[in-house]
Amino acid sequence: MSGILSDDALDTLFRNARTHNAWTDKPVSDDLLHKLYDLVKWGPTSANCSPARIVFVTSKEGKEKLAPALSQGNLAKTMSAPVTAILGYDVEFYERLPDLFPHDLTAKTWFNWSKEWAEQTAFRNGSLQGGYFILAARALGLDCGPMSGFDMAKVDEAFFAGTTVKVNFLCNLGYGDPKGLFNRSPRLPFDDVCKIV
Amino acid sequence: MSGILSDDALDTLFRNARTHNAWTDKPVSDDLLHKLYDLVKWGPTSANCSPARIVFVTSKEGKEKLAPALSQGNLAKTMSAPVTAILGYDVEFYERLPDLFPHDLTAKTWFNWSKEWAEQTAFRNGSLQGGYFILAARALGLDCGPMSGFDMAKVDEAFFAGTTVKVNFLCNLGYGDPKGLFNRSPRLPFDDVCKIV
Repeated sequence: MSGILSDDALDTLFRNARTHNAWTDKPVSDDLLHKLYDLVKWGPTSANCSPARIVFVTSKEGKEKLAPALSQGNLAKTMSAPVTAILGYDVEFYERLPDLFPHDLTAKTWFNWSKEWAEQTAFRNGSLQGGYFILAARALGLDCGPMSGFDMAKVDEAFFAGTTVKVNFLCNLGYGDPKGLFNRSPRLPFDDVCKIV
Repeated sequence: MSGILSDDALDTLFRNARTHNAWTDKPVSDDLLHKLYDLVKWGPTSANCSPARIVFVTSKEGKEKLAPALSQGNLAKTMSAPVTAILGYDVEFYERLPDLFPHDLTAKTWFNWSKEWAEQTAFRNGSLQGGYFILAARALGLDCGPMSGFDMAKVDEAFFAGTTVKVNFLCNLGYGDPKGLFNRSPRLPFDDVCKIV
């Protein structure tokens, strides 16, 4: 059943992909954002809880609403990116479990008994979906610029006020200009990260 | 610079991939686990902080150490999987930043000023790396069975005692037997998850 990806595909997803800081003028269509979600949604989450919620900021008005929350180092590149995705997670994701996990209608009670457990589940699985998001974007030929350098409370206030969604991270999307790349940082060797027991 | 993946590759990663519950006898070599890490490590993290830590449980002894922590529903499938990966994250990941972010030796101080912020960063980025892990495994032809149904304190005690690593989730790895698949659960429509502003 399983295929193995080509070396070219592995390069696109992992080995040659870089975090981009400068963007070409090439636009990103709404249609491509729909295609992106239609991949991300299939990634596995605990009990299919699917807590990620996404705001794609594409308009000048949207960018201006986001700007005051950004750290100085992330401002210019975010203003110039065709799209800035705000990745959030719904801490009351369990309200959708009757739709998402229809074969056991008690699934909601596995999470809503504890606010702390529900939030931890939303954060873990919303972040897993963040990983799927970045790789799905690359798979569709987009470049990514994920960022944690921003004021979370300000983003929540500007984009998620009155909801149960909290921001997780931001991710610029577009077609990167390689002139803006930093030197690639080293990675830890297998034995510093992994053990086989 | 960017390629676009083939439909077959997108099927392997996202559209046809399933969470597996039963495993064929086909083994998973240590070499393949090294190949897996050599993809996962390239996924982006905040300041390249790379907090994920992984224990690949492959031996009978390792499985027996893990068994008491598993929920009843996850026990048999985990015992029969060729590999169970324990995905954890190091809450003191910042100690490695001089290696990981060599162009700014103050990077450590961006995280170690607050235990809460460091832990949140480790959990977010360790979970992003969990997303990369699942998709990298699929890219190499493996099937995955990620799980949150286990006793976290027991896993920490059995595998991470005396370290600064905390367990995040478990993921069985191998070649799935499609007879063990559940019916696929529905996903939320674009408009319930995403907004374009």
